[in-house]
Amino acid sequence: MTFREDGHRAVDWAADYLERVGELPVLAQVRPGDIRARLPAAPPEQAEPFEAVLRDLDEVLLPGVTHWQHPRFFAYFAVSGSEPGILAELLAATLNNVGFLWRTAPASTELELLVADWVAQLIGLPPGWHGHIEDTASTGTLAALIAARRTTGRNVVVCSPHTHSATHKAAQMLGMELRESGADGEFRMTPDSLELGDVAVVVATVGTTSTASVDPVPEIADRCAAAGAWLHVDAAYAGSAMVCPELRWAFDGVERADSLVVNPHKWMFTPMDCSLLWTSRPDEFRDAFSLVPEFLRTTDEGALNLSEYGPALGRRFRSLKLWATIRCYGAEGLRARVREAIRLAELFEGWVRDEPGWELCAPRHFSLVCFRKEGSDEENEAILERVNASGEIFISHTKLNDRYVLRLAIGNERTAEADVQRAWDVLRDLG
Amino acid sequence: MTFREDGHRAVDWAADYLERVGELPVLAQVRPGDIRARLPAAPPEQAEPFEAVLRDLDEVLLPGVTHWQHPRFFAYFAVSGSEPGILAELLAATLNNVGFLWRTAPASTELELLVADWVAQLIGLPPGWHGHIEDTASTGTLAALIAARRTTGRNVVVCSPHTHSATHKAAQMLGMELRESGADGEFRMTPDSLELGDVAVVVATVGTTSTASVDPVPEIADRCAAAGAWLHVDAAYAGSAMVCPELRWAFDGVERADSLVVNPHKWMFTPMDCSLLWTSRPDEFRDAFSLVPEFLRTTDEGALNLSEYGPALGRRFRSLKLWATIRCYGAEGLRARVREAIRLAELFEGWVRDEPGWELCAPRHFSLVCFRKEGSDEENEAILERVNASGEIFISHTKLNDRYVLRLAIGNERTAEADVQRAWDVLRDLG
Repeated sequence: MTFREDGHRAVDWAADYLERVGELPVLAQVRPGDIRARLPAAPPEQAEPFEAVLRDLDEVLLPGVTHWQHPRFFAYFAVSGSEPGILAELLAATLNNVGFLWRTAPASTELELLVADWVAQLIGLPPGWHGHIEDTASTGTLAALIAARRTTGRNVVVCSPHTHSATHKAAQMLGMELRESGADGEFRMTPDSLELGDVAVVVATVGTTSTASVDPVPEIADRCAAAGAWLHVDAAYAGSAMVCPELRWAFDGVERADSLVVNPHKWMFTPMDCSLLWTSRPDEFRDAFSLVPEFLRTTDEGALNLSEYGPALGRRFRSLKLWATIRCYGAEGLRARVREAIRLAELFEGWVRDEPGWELCAPRHFSLVCFRKEGSDEENEAILERVNASGEIFISHTKLNDRYVLRLAIGNERTAEADVQRAWDVLRDLG
Repeated sequence: MTFREDGHRAVDWAADYLERVGELPVLAQVRPGDIRARLPAAPPEQAEPFEAVLRDLDEVLLPGVTHWQHPRFFAYFAVSGSEPGILAELLAATLNNVGFLWRTAPASTELELLVADWVAQLIGLPPGWHGHIEDTASTGTLAALIAARRTTGRNVVVCSPHTHSATHKAAQMLGMELRESGADGEFRMTPDSLELGDVAVVVATVGTTSTASVDPVPEIADRCAAAGAWLHVDAAYAGSAMVCPELRWAFDGVERADSLVVNPHKWMFTPMDCSLLWTSRPDEFRDAFSLVPEFLRTTDEGALNLSEYGPALGRRFRSLKLWATIRCYGAEGLRARVREAIRLAELFEGWVRDEPGWELCAPRHFSLVCFRKEGSDEENEAILERVNASGEIFISHTKLNDRYVLRLAIGNERTAEADVQRAWDVLRDLG
């Protein structure tokens, strides 16, 4: 086999890509169907060399890639796949562990529990919580709702108008009733609006998707405790920022949650997919997901099987990339990157504030700025389409108080001040 | 950064590992807690070089790895992470695409639809089905049950006593009622036992977990059609074998299924995780999972968002590893590997049949042999523990007709005749 040679070629491809990604158009400049039309409709009968795969990756697929590793990716929540994390994915795929039981993957199981504890320490969670990795916050939220329904015997989910749609989707999938709480003028859940008598679970958010607003978790926790409702906290984006002590105000009350989601693949520089799910009630969680058929029974005393704590049976060795990232960045490296992203967001916020004809649309939290040009929704949507079509930057949008609002999120570790300056130049030029 | 140099080191580590994996004990020879005890309880404050990660992978983690890439891994369903698939994972992590919308990952979205169609052709599915990739068959089954419940408005799942526990777990998570059908002496669902008046979905299996038995799908499809029940087919393991026309008898009737799961990470040589989920009713599937909030609305006409067809929003570029594997093996390479695994299983079956004191416990299907030594369940369990503790081979077990039965599954592409011979020698020596 030519694995070693092919592997060195693949690494060189990856290294070259990361060196030049900033020169590519951020948003793929293709139309639906373009990429597929350039690929054979049928699989090959004979084997091809791996070089053919690399060639087609360059020539056929790359024009259809939206570059999440690009320093001027500012849409949704910008992310980074760290270099140690990328290499750890190579190693995880090489080992190809399938971790449905401790026995089938002891190192993967124990490293997963360990790095969940590491991150718990980094972001200031109480000791003793059970943490493990799911693919995405969608799955973590789904799992939390399942555990909450089973534990409380109730079928109602409460969230705010600014809660991520993953909660609505999970409720829809599970056949749970969803009710929306009120929200204040700064896009936070209003605890006074909560009526929890028959409620299974309240989903509070630290760092909402539209504006990164922070729900008042202490008051929500009070209400949940009084009503016997499960409290799930979605900190998918902002949770990673809790590595910085000066931002920990946002985690007030989270120590009273029943479950919590934080996505290291969002702002802890870990490649997709890596979403941490903790629970302070591991026994109830296990009750909801444990189901060990005969063919999976083992005699390993004291072994913990992670498939008994979540929906999926088969599990990848996902902890390796998070472990590699934390080790190669160190706690201080994580903090420095988070602080730099926030500094850049503050800069951009200032430019918008000072520019006549532009306005800020929500308080800036963390590294997300919500803004728009004075004018109609249609004009702002047209600005978004123009700047994204330029390939220079990629931003996304939301609606706040029924108005179309532009969002600029900083989170890619390659983003430098010059990139944010360029974003602002492009927005003003095309706006 | 030292990414390029670290990457070459990681590739050399991977290449060395794959060259020597056959010399390592298959089943990790550690006790629960051993690995974790050798790792620091707290994350590092300062950054460490990637070489430290590689060193600890060797010195600390590797003794805790159960080697799924080992040629004498015969437990559960043996799998292979192909070399092109491993390198594709490196590339996917490098691109770090998050494919929740077409726009955020056009190449990933379109390649995923394309490779699903490629595999559909390879295994003889009807044209026009919608296929996409989920992490595991657990998720695919969960999704099928959700779509079935929404489409039929009913809440009952029917499966056989030999259906994979993922169905039981999905029903438990969703709050659906589960009923078990009858089964015949060869571990197949008995269509006459199906009462489907109020049933949402029947889960039929092509290649059950315990014995790889094949449910009579045509008769089950008749019953489902008459009762208006959804038919979900679980071919997680055996589906990949359908690349061989001489095995297609097992897919009779599958063309009438509403949904189907096949795991390329089981027997199509693709690294974890890669589970294909097809549906012949894409509109109903989309109805169950589509939920596009404002912040995800785009203006890309004709674009298909894969997150609208399954539970998760965020999605990795999983298609790359399946595409790389199919291209580098070719259809004929896939067929040759499946046939060789079956040839080896037939050999082993013959040795057991001819050996006094040993017996076959189920008809052999595909590459799975169920057998035991004459004697008590305890004696057979002790044999399993002894052979696994030897590190020479790794096998697993099941219960059939209330008896403890050993399972030998062939599926690792590195497994040669000498490895199967050694397994038999070890079993007789220690049995």
